[in-house]
Amino acid sequence: MPHIGVDIGGTAIKIGIADSEGIVFRQTKIATEPVRGSRAIVQSIIESIDRLLAASEFTRKDVDSIGLGVPGTTDDATGSVLYAPNLAWRNVRIVPDFEACFCAPVHLVQDTRAAAWAEHLIGAGRGLGSVAAVTLGTGIGCGLVLDGKLYKGPLNTAGELGHQIVVPGGVRCNCGRRGCLEAYAGGLGILRQAAQAMPSLAAELGKAEREVSVADIFDQAEAGDRAACALVQSTVEYIGIGLVALINLCSVEMIALSGGISNAPRGLLLDPQTKFVRDNAYTAIADRVQICRSPLGEDAPLAGAALLNCMAQV
Amino acid sequence: MPHIGVDIGGTAIKIGIADSEGIVFRQTKIATEPVRGSRAIVQSIIESIDRLLAASEFTRKDVDSIGLGVPGTTDDATGSVLYAPNLAWRNVRIVPDFEACFCAPVHLVQDTRAAAWAEHLIGAGRGLGSVAAVTLGTGIGCGLVLDGKLYKGPLNTAGELGHQIVVPGGVRCNCGRRGCLEAYAGGLGILRQAAQAMPSLAAELGKAEREVSVADIFDQAEAGDRAACALVQSTVEYIGIGLVALINLCSVEMIALSGGISNAPRGLLLDPQTKFVRDNAYTAIADRVQICRSPLGEDAPLAGAALLNCMAQV
Repeated sequence: MPHIGVDIGGTAIKIGIADSEGIVFRQTKIATEPVRGSRAIVQSIIESIDRLLAASEFTRKDVDSIGLGVPGTTDDATGSVLYAPNLAWRNVRIVPDFEACFCAPVHLVQDTRAAAWAEHLIGAGRGLGSVAAVTLGTGIGCGLVLDGKLYKGPLNTAGELGHQIVVPGGVRCNCGRRGCLEAYAGGLGILRQAAQAMPSLAAELGKAEREVSVADIFDQAEAGDRAACALVQSTVEYIGIGLVALINLCSVEMIALSGGISNAPRGLLLDPQTKFVRDNAYTAIADRVQICRSPLGEDAPLAGAALLNCMAQV
Repeated sequence: MPHIGVDIGGTAIKIGIADSEGIVFRQTKIATEPVRGSRAIVQSIIESIDRLLAASEFTRKDVDSIGLGVPGTTDDATGSVLYAPNLAWRNVRIVPDFEACFCAPVHLVQDTRAAAWAEHLIGAGRGLGSVAAVTLGTGIGCGLVLDGKLYKGPLNTAGELGHQIVVPGGVRCNCGRRGCLEAYAGGLGILRQAAQAMPSLAAELGKAEREVSVADIFDQAEAGDRAACALVQSTVEYIGIGLVALINLCSVEMIALSGGISNAPRGLLLDPQTKFVRDNAYTAIADRVQICRSPLGEDAPLAGAALLNCMAQV
């Protein structure tokens, strides 16, 4: 009966046991410490699974499926993580390690896709055919469920929302291109612009420059700081341009936002974001698409990973 | 054995008989004359089908399927065209009229989707899972086949590539929004900008202002006119921003371009367009996506309509 979900992040790894409805009834969290290398990390995950199983009076052979969500690109054919910069993994084949320990199918997907799958099955998009899970954090990512199926694309690159061009010829993004959404509305992009527009902010907050956070910018905007308000507004517009393309092209009915930036006060982000979409998306869909903060929040990838076996059965 | 395809355009209607491989072996074309109203138009189409069948020694009861491509939004549940501005149709229920005459399934889709279906099955995207058919004409449209299935989206609005924001706060588009791709890189948008940037062009060509065509602009660019070259370059960039979003979000392997603007000299449009995509799309897919002129050209919607029954069988 138990399904195992694992959400491997750059800082922490969440491991959970879920029932067949995707309800995680026992979970734990371990530090990733990428410097340990992939073998040691995989070993820690397997030990954690064993402890969770023992605590729930299950054994390895009771496990019905294992789902792994990773912050990077994957290759289904070989069960490998092709590239996960936050883990410093390149071509790391992890699926066989789990298959060797458990007599159950092992599924591997990008974490944003696991999140979208969870939103579709048990989250904001329950009962809806086409759903996007958009992560607004240091990076901007997007998992897509289209017509009830996880959509990865034949080249396994679908949902790269963060690399849409919002400022032609603009600043260079981490991906190497110029003017990407992520370079302006991702966490680092917002902080870069803040350093220019609000040069005395760190001093005012009594912080070092590198300690200023996106939450500080939102706090300043809430307090009425003009430069912070302008920055928040332009962030909403950049994200809005991305969401409009997502809605117009993919016709999603629900967009569930997660990630640090999505925790901004509703009046500063979610409300104006929704208004931007209503005012700018293609008319036939603009009023029908729903935008919300993910009800599953940071646990969406874990829940989705535990539910990946449902995907195989669709 | 015969499958009927119908491509209903604002000016002309193409009707063809295809074999089960989608090869149209007999076709005809009639004037649409939208002022006649939908009943008369449907009647003309049915009469044309009858003539095509008789010429091929078939009768109505031999027909295996009928596919209708229309330049507008459709409602599958009622078999209606919800809105087709070029036909001046609103909520016109046409599927039952065909069902009453032929004992065969009748399929109705937007023409760009029929084109995408044709590209996937017998055109540029044969053998590929995810394919986009992009029409560059007066309007900018896009049909999507994702993972081997025609993707319409739950709200039947997928593929609205022309209404992506490329100039935030820019000129008003026909759709009512501002700064849409279509308002800059659609035929009317190009001509609007030409009238500003090249005010003496009509006189130089010995034409009235309204007779200047997009082909004239491309001719001027080929001849080295600086303003025309700049306009063509910005058109390529606007379309490029749209294609990058399409590629990054939908992970299509093939983009088949059609429509009047796609007929521009290769060195002015297709080559720089491809270069823009290689330079700006997400790195993991930028070099792998193929962009070409549709080998099916203007016949893609007709061929796709005749092949719609394959979709039902998928």
